This record gives sequence, structure tokens and C-alpha cells, in this order.
Amino acid sequence: METVSEAKAHGGVQGVYKHQSEATGCEMTFAVFVPPQAAKAPCPVVWYLSGLTCTHQNVMDKGEYRRMAAALGLIIVCPDTSPRGDGVADDPDDWQIGKGAGFYVDATEVPWADHYRMYSYIAEELPDLIADSFPADMDRQAVFGHSMGGHGALTLALKNRARFRSCSAFAPIVAPSQAEWARKAFALYLGTDEKKWRQHDATCLVEDGAHFPELLVDQGAADGFLESGLMPHLFDEACRKSGIALTLRMQPGYDHSYNFISTFMDDHLRWHADRLR
Amino acid sequence: METVSEAKAHGGVQGVYKHQSEATGCEMTFAVFVPPQAAKAPCPVVWYLSGLTCTHQNVMDKGEYRRMAAALGLIIVCPDTSPRGDGVADDPDDWQIGKGAGFYVDATEVPWADHYRMYSYIAEELPDLIADSFPADMDRQAVFGHSMGGHGALTLALKNRARFRSCSAFAPIVAPSQAEWARKAFALYLGTDEKKWRQHDATCLVEDGAHFPELLVDQGAADGFLESGLMPHLFDEACRKSGIALTLRMQPGYDHSYNFISTFMDDHLRWHADRLR
Repeated sequence: METVSEAKAHGGVQGVYKHQSEATGCEMTFAVFVPPQAAKAPCPVVWYLSGLTCTHQNVMDKGEYRRMAAALGLIIVCPDTSPRGDGVADDPDDWQIGKGAGFYVDATEVPWADHYRMYSYIAEELPDLIADSFPADMDRQAVFGHSMGGHGALTLALKNRARFRSCSAFAPIVAPSQAEWARKAFALYLGTDEKKWRQHDATCLVEDGAHFPELLVDQGAADGFLESGLMPHLFDEACRKSGIALTLRMQPGYDHSYNFISTFMDDHLRWHADRLR
Repeated sequence: METVSEAKAHGGVQGVYKHQSEATGCEMTFAVFVPPQAAKAPCPVVWYLSGLTCTHQNVMDKGEYRRMAAALGLIIVCPDTSPRGDGVADDPDDWQIGKGAGFYVDATEVPWADHYRMYSYIAEELPDLIADSFPADMDRQAVFGHSMGGHGALTLALKNRARFRSCSAFAPIVAPSQAEWARKAFALYLGTDEKKWRQHDATCLVEDGAHFPELLVDQGAADGFLESGLMPHLFDEACRKSGIALTLRMQPGYDHSYNFISTFMDDHLRWHADRLR
């Protein structure tokens, strides 16, 4: 692991790091905020998974998480959203496919399977690196994310309930199998047999029996992607039927941007801190 | 005035606007955050002046001011740092000259005098536009800024004491006449007669009798520009001699970036709100 940059912020350290990833077969960059409390004892880890077109940097610049993370003593890890580099398959004309659009799955199809293994990267490889390199209490982990990263957070938590004490999301893609902007990527990455998509679809996972005790989702009511891409009611219905305590908050007037995310960032960090104690 | 974008954030509205400026003879863009309290009554206005290379957008993305501004009921206005456009003089090889480096002065020299009139723009033209277009209580104004924008805030306040109830700065250029990175620009914009520079130099202004009751300055002790460009001790000495209550806080470990600014943003907004009540 190589340090790209480190700067003091809100009493802690905001760093950017890179490493050669085995899972994705390329160099990966990620951001970590370490709060001041980590000087005394290992701190819990909150994973933030970003949305389409983002890198680690968008939330680092615009997410406004450091003040509250420093107050609550939380390490915040912000991975990239896809493999990167010249040798990595891409569709430069479609922001919903390829670089910036990893969808947190392990691709099985040519040519994507070579590098698009973001599920293994986030679920296995990067946690090992974080455990080795930072003052992290890996017995206390939480995960949240935005849009495509909300999809990542929900599916990761539902599939790894023992690892995460809490999970939340901002405007998540809760039903990628039914969302126009995810179906294209799923077909390319996972093939056209939609049965195989179910294990990467939060709504399907719940329908198929995956459980998580409680979830928090904030959704902007003025979000332009609400009807076509996000459809939180589908997940709400599945959670009701299966007894998952989903708190779904429709936030009047808010769009899909970091203006929305930063507004509710404190609430989400408190939600996680309460469950990580 | 034309609306470029508006989004709900922290209960208020973060907007970006543009207009044809008479002062600078070009189209100018600026950002305004209007807090939720403005729906009921006009709110005080806090001006944030940005540093070298910045536009209105850097602080909008990374400054983390909206949460506290919404809590305190403050309108935040973030202007650009120079004239813009194809017909505007520039030195594309020097980030300390030309576009992004207006230094909040009215240039008198060829070719800069045509458009580089940021002092008149900030001191006169933009306030009129804000008063006309936003629910602003112009009898309650404050000003702060970062680096070159700290220089702008201090000189603007010292020269317009009646307009501003409070003033603060993050890592300001307090003595541009003595700072390598400002001397070049001052010579180009104002000519080589350094006597004319004194009215655009906070330390000189104080030495020459300008007054402001109290000032807050935060300075990162790990700021790489501390010795060559910022030199807060020069301003501290001038303030002591003239009876200005300068609170100069050296902040251990902090650099010159928005990691530093965002950390102390809440303190500065509270400082202003206390004096705007």
C-alpha cells in the first residue's frame, strides 16, 4: 500500500492510498478517514460505497462526513467504484457501463470478468488491507452508500450479516434487476440469465430469505431517478413481508446529489455509531 | 441574473447564478446559499472570498458551510476570484497571475485594467445584485475568506468598516507587498510604485490607520506557504500596535487546504453570527 496523500482534518487524518489489487487485477485507490480517537484505541469501521461515475474522491470532497466521524470516533473507508487503468474493459460512451460503474458484483462474462470483481474486492480483499494497515476494530463494521453504492451497501450487508452491525443508504438502487440503468450492466457483467442477478439485487435477496435486523434509507422526493432507477417502494414491500425493520424516509425537495447526501450524513453516522457501540 | 443551478441542501437552497458584470466587463458566476430562515425574514449576509486558482465552486464543494449556516440563519455568498472569458488577459503559465488570481484589486495597468476590477465588483456591484435578488438583510454583513481571499476579506473590511459587522480569515495573505506570490501580481496590476500597493495590503492599511474592532484568523501551523506567502506575525504586530483585537490561532498540524478550512468553518460562522445578531 502506498500513501497518495494525508492531511489533518477535524482532528483526524484524511488519507488517500493505492495498492495493487489481486481481486481486480489493477491498481486501486481508496480514501480513509481516521478519527482522533484512533490514537488511543482501535475504532469501528464504516464503509461508504459511492455511486455511478464516482471515484473515492466525490464523497471525500462533498460528503461532509469528517466532522461527525471525528466526534463519534468512526473510521470511514471510501473505495473506488470500479477497476481502473488502460487495460480495463470500458464503454466510454455509456456512464452506466464499465469504469465508474462496477455495481459491486463479480462479473462472469467476457470481457468484464477479467477485472470487474468489485464484490470480492470490497467483501474480502480491501477489508484485509484495512485490518492490516489502520487502527481498525474489524469486529465493529457498518456499511452505507449512495445510489449504485446504496445497492452495494444493501447487498453486501444482506449477504454478510455477521460482518456488519448496521447498514444504511442514500437513494439506493434497491431493485437493479428492474431498473433500466442497472439491467444493461447486469446483462453484460452477469449474463442474460436473470436468475443469476437475484443474488446482486437487494429486493430479490430479501424475497429469497436474506435478513438484516434494521435498515435506514433516505430518499429525496425530488430525485429525478426516483421512478425509473430507484423505486424504493419495491424494497419497502419486500422488507415488510419479511419482517425487516426498514426506516424509509422520503425527504421533500431533495435531489440525487451530494447536497442531499451531505444534509443527512450526520443522521446516518449517528445511526451507525449507535449500533457499533 | 440567470440561475445556473439550485438544489435543496440542509433545509436551504444552494444556488449558482451568473450575470453580465459592468465592473469586470464579462460574465461572472457566483454561488449563494440561502438558509431556511429566509422564508420568514431577510437574513444577514456572510461573504466568503476564495483563494488563488479557485472559482465559486471550491468552497461550495469542500467548505462544509451549509449545515452551520442553516442552523444560524446566514446567507453565504461565494464570488469568483477573477474575471473570466476568452477576451480576458491571462498568464496561463503562472497560477499567481491572471484568471483565478484577481487579488480583489482594481487593476490600473495595461492589459489588466480592462477586466481585473474585482475590488469594485465585490465592494459595489455584487452587493447591489444580492440586495435586489435575495432575501438579504444588507444592514447585517460579514466577510471572510481563505488565503488570497483572506487578504480580500481583511482589506475589504478595513476599508469598509461601516459595511461589515465582522471579519475573519483562514490562512490569509496579510502582507501581499512582502509576499513573493503577491508581489508579481501587484506589480502587474497596480504598477511598480509600491506606495500604491499599501491600500491593498492589510498590514499596511492597519499601519496607515485603518481600524476594525476585532478580527479572527486561523492559520495552519503545517501550512507550506506560512513563511514565504502568509507571514501572519506581520499583521499580528501591526494589530497590536494599533489596538485591533486580533485573535490569531495557530492550528497545529493543519495545512493550507480545505481540510483545514472545513475543520474551522463552524467556528468562523459562529463568530460572525454572534456579531450579526
